[in-house]
Amino acid sequence: MKDPAAGYFNCSDSERAAFEAGIKLGALYHQFVGMPMDPENVEDVERAIEDSIKAQPFVADVKVHIRRDMIKRGRNIYKYCTLHGEMLDVRLVVRYGKSEAVCRLRYVEDLKYPLMYVEAIREV
Amino acid sequence: MKDPAAGYFNCSDSERAAFEAGIKLGALYHQFVGMPMDPENVEDVERAIEDSIKAQPFVADVKVHIRRDMIKRGRNIYKYCTLHGEMLDVRLVVRYGKSEAVCRLRYVEDLKYPLMYVEAIREV
Amino acid sequence: MKDPAAGYFNCSDSERAAFEAGIKLGALYHQFVGMPMDPENVEDVERAIEDSIKAQPFVADVKVHIRRDMIKRGRNIYKYCTLHGEMLDVRLVVRYGKSEAVCRLRYVEDLKYPLMYVEAIREV
Amino acid sequence: MKDPAAGYFNCSDSERAAFEAGIKLGALYHQFVGMPMDPENVEDVERAIEDSIKAQPFVADVKVHIRRDMIKRGRNIYKYCTLHGEMLDVRLVVRYGKSEAVCRLRYVEDLKYPLMYVEAIREV
Repeated sequence: MKDPAAGYFNCSDSERAAFEAGIKLGALYHQFVGMPMDPENVEDVERAIEDSIKAQPFVADVKVHIRRDMIKRGRNIYKYCTLHGEMLDVRLVVRYGKSEAVCRLRYVEDLKYPLMYVEAIREV
Repeated sequence: MKDPAAGYFNCSDSERAAFEAGIKLGALYHQFVGMPMDPENVEDVERAIEDSIKAQPFVADVKVHIRRDMIKRGRNIYKYCTLHGEMLDVRLVVRYGKSEAVCRLRYVEDLKYPLMYVEAIREV
Repeated sequence: MKDPAAGYFNCSDSERAAFEAGIKLGALYHQFVGMPMDPENVEDVERAIEDSIKAQPFVADVKVHIRRDMIKRGRNIYKYCTLHGEMLDVRLVVRYGKSEAVCRLRYVEDLKYPLMYVEAIREV
Repeated sequence: MKDPAAGYFNCSDSERAAFEAGIKLGALYHQFVGMPMDPENVEDVERAIEDSIKAQPFVADVKVHIRRDMIKRGRNIYKYCTLHGEMLDVRLVVRYGKSEAVCRLRYVEDLKYPLMYVEAIREV
């Protein structure tokens, strides 16, 4: 994909890939956390979030998994549940120019935090 | 559905139905507006929003339509678009006890406003 | 306030007040839950949410309280916290015509649920 | 600030700074767009958004400006307006280790797009 906004950036391809990946993960988290969902219907929610990310530029691949163990605990008196950040396990690959950023969002038990991190930067 | 929270309310069934409908429309708007989406994929977004509403209590029926004419105009330099409140046309029926609230969210040209309103309250 | 959209509604003043209150509570929850905040700065967040609600039509009064006990527990490894629905205690009064809906959003321990409910409907 | 999550990352300091800046801008956009606000009260909204960003890790500086010209046009029948992405002009500096990413979110007329971009990466 030719980037119509390339002229606005002053950074390397790998920094750009990391920046774009950060945008997508920040957007995903703050767009979808709080969403009411049917516990019987989690696959469709995963697909809907993936589609929303894939629609954005420079996304080479994305996999969204919502943790079934937390959904079970999260069912409320009305039998539905709300998407919490802790439930998300996302693997995102962003490609810009010749660089790829492989990123992750998942709840890290050791940190008790839904961490967004860069697993690898690689040339493609 | 037996309502486990009934004891907390001091209002009639029709007022409750209207209240619950308002919650769902306010939630829908502020949860999903801003969502990036693929213009080729609008049906799936409509279904995902409907599923999220149906998961909540007292929803008898919901139909979400995203206006195709506005999506076409809304496509950006990266070929995706963002869900705007003006694009939404939602018809929602909430039932509580013996009352039903038939509600709507749609952009009203005369008011230049995405209006949430009560089309009818009826006994069932 | 004269209501420019009155002609679109088919319901009583009390049903309208309940509907409008539901919209505001649903909006508040889904707009602000997930917001990162500084635990030293909670008063300002409360005011910002109140101001956002007061900007909307038919709001006679609103009081937003964020539970300090939950904020303390909610501090993460980076010393900030994220607004959860469970932290909110909101009292909202909506007036339409001659009716007033006094509503509440708060986490109800007995239900383990952040309940939005109607405390009273009254004539004014 | 010592980073408790440093061990999870495989990238340079400058890539990390760009990644963290992307997260903050994506979060800001998707958390706050759609927020109802009083046009008389824009300064407070700017401060509230800045505070929410500053609460997050590695933010060295942030300045949020909401475009007054667009607010004027955005006033609706009920005299309030809703925060649109196009209204935002944000300058964000993220520091990680010895690198700093100077980033921007603003509506670029030439692209007709609220662009998030990296103005500079520098050593500090």
